[in-house]
Amino acid sequence: MERIPILQMGEFLLVTIQVDMHDRLAMTLQDDLTNRITQTNARGVLIDISALEIVDSFIGRILGNIAKMSQVLDAQTVVVGMQPAVAITLVELGLSLTGVRTALNVEKGMTLLQRSLRRDSGYRVSTPRGFLDGDAQA
Amino acid sequence: MERIPILQMGEFLLVTIQVDMHDRLAMTLQDDLTNRITQTNARGVLIDISALEIVDSFIGRILGNIAKMSQVLDAQTVVVGMQPAVAITLVELGLSLTGVRTALNVEKGMTLLQRSLRRDSGYRVSTPRGFLDGDAQA
Repeated sequence: MERIPILQMGEFLLVTIQVDMHDRLAMTLQDDLTNRITQTNARGVLIDISALEIVDSFIGRILGNIAKMSQVLDAQTVVVGMQPAVAITLVELGLSLTGVRTALNVEKGMTLLQRSLRRDSGYRVSTPRGFLDGDAQA
Repeated sequence: MERIPILQMGEFLLVTIQVDMHDRLAMTLQDDLTNRITQTNARGVLIDISALEIVDSFIGRILGNIAKMSQVLDAQTVVVGMQPAVAITLVELGLSLTGVRTALNVEKGMTLLQRSLRRDSGYRVSTPRGFLDGDAQA
């Protein structure tokens, strides 16, 4: 598998990491993601790591880099779906995902992004609002 | 990698297939997906195959089976993100994805699911409506 697909959902981009990351794949992902952010004017990036059973310092650094790159391009990053065992191991190993925000799952991550973008300078985040209002409307 | 993650987005489930499918992985995916549909009352399943460079008869059968199983559980399935080369090969090989609906990308797939569910018996699909209205509101 050569590259990790990036899905556009309204103003957000969604990346699901399922395969073992190696240097080249990580570089490709960074390139693809920064290109997509500029192409699509994305305001947020959601990275789902629910398939990962190990998050080591390498993956941690990649996630941190992606967050920083997105920030420079005016998009915020949230890492979602971390398995409980991964959280335990991260803390036990003393790895902190510096500068990376996390949320329990994609929906909560989207809510977080939307709230955070709404707070910023009155920018109107319209596209995936349904996720916030969904349960109330149903 | 043992299983393919299933992401919940409102009333829809999203599956991104990135790895080569084999028998056991396909079985696991079918089990996981049907369980998640019943747990979450999902009304739609989106399967993103943008990472796949080859769709052979095995994958085609799996997609068809997932669509049928979801249908029985009252959820509709849309396959999204097919690469142009894959579409060409499918037709050249005479493989037809029988019973599987397709859309260009996740957003269009979601729109298709929402329209199709709205049409059904006045059921109110509220959750990811933002995707439909987003551009008009912005």
